[in-house]
Amino acid sequence: MRKTDPEHRMSTPTDPVKLTADLIRCPSVTPEEGGALVLLQGLLEEAGFTCTRVDRGGIANLYARWGDKGHERTFGFNGHTDVVPVGDEAAWTMPPFGAEEHDGVLYGRGATDMKSAVAAFAAAAIDFVRDTPPDGAIVLAITGDEEGDAQDGTLALLDWMYESGEQLTDCLVGEPTCPETMGEMIKIGRRGSMSAWFTVTGKQGHSAYPHRATNPLHAMARLMDGIASRELDKGTEHFDPSTLAVVNIDTGNPATNVIPAQTRATVNIRFNDCHTGNTLSDWLRAEAAHVDEGYGTTTEVKIKISGEAFLTPPGPLSDLVAAAVEAETGVTPELSTTGGTSDARFVKDHCPVVEFGLVGRTMHQVDECVPVEQIRQLKAVYARILAEYFA
Amino acid sequence: MRKTDPEHRMSTPTDPVKLTADLIRCPSVTPEEGGALVLLQGLLEEAGFTCTRVDRGGIANLYARWGDKGHERTFGFNGHTDVVPVGDEAAWTMPPFGAEEHDGVLYGRGATDMKSAVAAFAAAAIDFVRDTPPDGAIVLAITGDEEGDAQDGTLALLDWMYESGEQLTDCLVGEPTCPETMGEMIKIGRRGSMSAWFTVTGKQGHSAYPHRATNPLHAMARLMDGIASRELDKGTEHFDPSTLAVVNIDTGNPATNVIPAQTRATVNIRFNDCHTGNTLSDWLRAEAAHVDEGYGTTTEVKIKISGEAFLTPPGPLSDLVAAAVEAETGVTPELSTTGGTSDARFVKDHCPVVEFGLVGRTMHQVDECVPVEQIRQLKAVYARILAEYFA
Ligand SMILES: [Zn+2]
Ligand SMILES: [Zn+2]
Repeated sequence: MRKTDPEHRMSTPTDPVKLTADLIRCPSVTPEEGGALVLLQGLLEEAGFTCTRVDRGGIANLYARWGDKGHERTFGFNGHTDVVPVGDEAAWTMPPFGAEEHDGVLYGRGATDMKSAVAAFAAAAIDFVRDTPPDGAIVLAITGDEEGDAQDGTLALLDWMYESGEQLTDCLVGEPTCPETMGEMIKIGRRGSMSAWFTVTGKQGHSAYPHRATNPLHAMARLMDGIASRELDKGTEHFDPSTLAVVNIDTGNPATNVIPAQTRATVNIRFNDCHTGNTLSDWLRAEAAHVDEGYGTTTEVKIKISGEAFLTPPGPLSDLVAAAVEAETGVTPELSTTGGTSDARFVKDHCPVVEFGLVGRTMHQVDECVPVEQIRQLKAVYARILAEYFA
Repeated sequence: MRKTDPEHRMSTPTDPVKLTADLIRCPSVTPEEGGALVLLQGLLEEAGFTCTRVDRGGIANLYARWGDKGHERTFGFNGHTDVVPVGDEAAWTMPPFGAEEHDGVLYGRGATDMKSAVAAFAAAAIDFVRDTPPDGAIVLAITGDEEGDAQDGTLALLDWMYESGEQLTDCLVGEPTCPETMGEMIKIGRRGSMSAWFTVTGKQGHSAYPHRATNPLHAMARLMDGIASRELDKGTEHFDPSTLAVVNIDTGNPATNVIPAQTRATVNIRFNDCHTGNTLSDWLRAEAAHVDEGYGTTTEVKIKISGEAFLTPPGPLSDLVAAAVEAETGVTPELSTTGGTSDARFVKDHCPVVEFGLVGRTMHQVDECVPVEQIRQLKAVYARILAEYFA
């Protein structure tokens, strides 16, 4: 009856709150699929989407398209159903995979990051293609590897899309983007992120004869103080100042009378478009070489660039998303580039990409939660984006 | 036969090289006895010494006396059989507890610090009381806790001696005292030694939002660089300049995207008579408070003063030891106060004490070793000291 009676179909919109709760009950801690993508695939296929599982390296990913492949107007949503671990389960007051609702707030791991957004864009897309089928295509690219390595998630989907001739015209990533208030922030770029591991080697010796040893810790203290004290930049038009954090120094020497041979440190940098991973790598290596010269140490520097800084300059896509957000929430969103990394860093090589989602305040925390009203608002925003995009 | 034939006994001096090798083969890393004291006790009892195990706090110590308790001429030797850990075993080219001899050099942990000296004074004392029994007493006070806390080693022996009415007239500590050449240095005092443990507490946060965290590692790097760069003094009449070594920084944070709440460091200071443990403690606490003020951190400083700087002024004991050293090595020894701490810091409260032993160049290092000829020289020096002392 549902498939043959348009009147009836118009009158039963897909409930994004129930879908979010169903997804939270899937224990999809990276790299576990947990049933989340299977659930979505069932709903989307029923709604007329062509679904392909794009699994790689033990990770499940789902590509769902409604409409023709390669249509010149293909709007994509990107998101992830994997979640970070529960952490200290004893500290939770709600079951992390229970999806309990209390006083209009839905609790559970992934409630904000980002099963609500996946539910919201899936619900919006299902209703939209059913009620007002567009002259275009809609793609949902949903990965199970955003919180982990991210090497077999959105990257696997993009690789498969390239091989299969699948192409998006524009894309929205549904990560939580709002610091405090629903609607206040759209992300149009992201800072780059990199980590560096320093191993400083000196010469072991007795604390009483420091002139016979080469103390790697004195070199390390100077090196870390030097790089931590450096102002990387003052920010740019669209970006905050870059930041650097020394996140670890470990030596493991229990003996007070021994100067150890080696010590290690880890540094994390979030950088704007003043820098690239390479310019910062060169700087870190030069600082280490300078300290080595002064202290007689040898410092090895290993670097991993997780993503370069990027920007989708304000334009038609961000205008359209901002207008939809304002219409549904009454808040004028700021176009921002703050915060951590996301899969937008991969999508940006494929097509223009912006990000809009929930308030991220409880993400990755104990008692992660979302007001159900915000899930409904988010579905409405995504629905309006589709309507305007294909208008 | 050995016990009844003086001729034979005269003709078979105790071999200090073999005894050193036997001791090295006892894996007596603090606090393990490792069989070393049991071995010595057997030899000394056979030679007519009255032996008492003075164990305390899980540490084994040995007190061995030949002659009457409380004799007005009682010469004491002090030493230790415990050794520091092997460290990076893969870096050793010889088995650390193998006591292998190659080209006249004996290898192993404790070869210089200080199983050779224990073997040398035990061998010298055994032969001396057998061949030329003195009108006096000889004491060997050997501890298994010099490289560790040292709270249950020589201190335990001294406490027990006080309770038991045991008294030394003079004492020689057999620690390695010569920087490069056998015979070149006697120690008549020691620098003070102290350690400080710093715990810097900030506020945990996400690396992407460092302004919401308080990074204790940035404060730690500044604090350690500051105190490591400070010149403590320029030295005094009998003492070298004081030295400071940062010996450890540990944090234990494996996550590059997390700024940790806390980090810890350990500092060791060897100080001369310009300072006391208290003046240095005040300085360290002031430095920490200054950094805390700048960084918003809270630093806890725990301090342990292992020993204050002290001096046994040049006199009869140092003259006698210097003469014996010169006679056996042909080198005129310098009277010095350089180097690390030793149990002389405890003995000096009991009787006059000087220190003379091997070249310490490889102590606490990989491939610790000693030329066997120097072990024989050391035994000869100790034998001559006994002969002159009781002449
Ligand atoms: Zn996320
Ligand atoms: Zn020693």
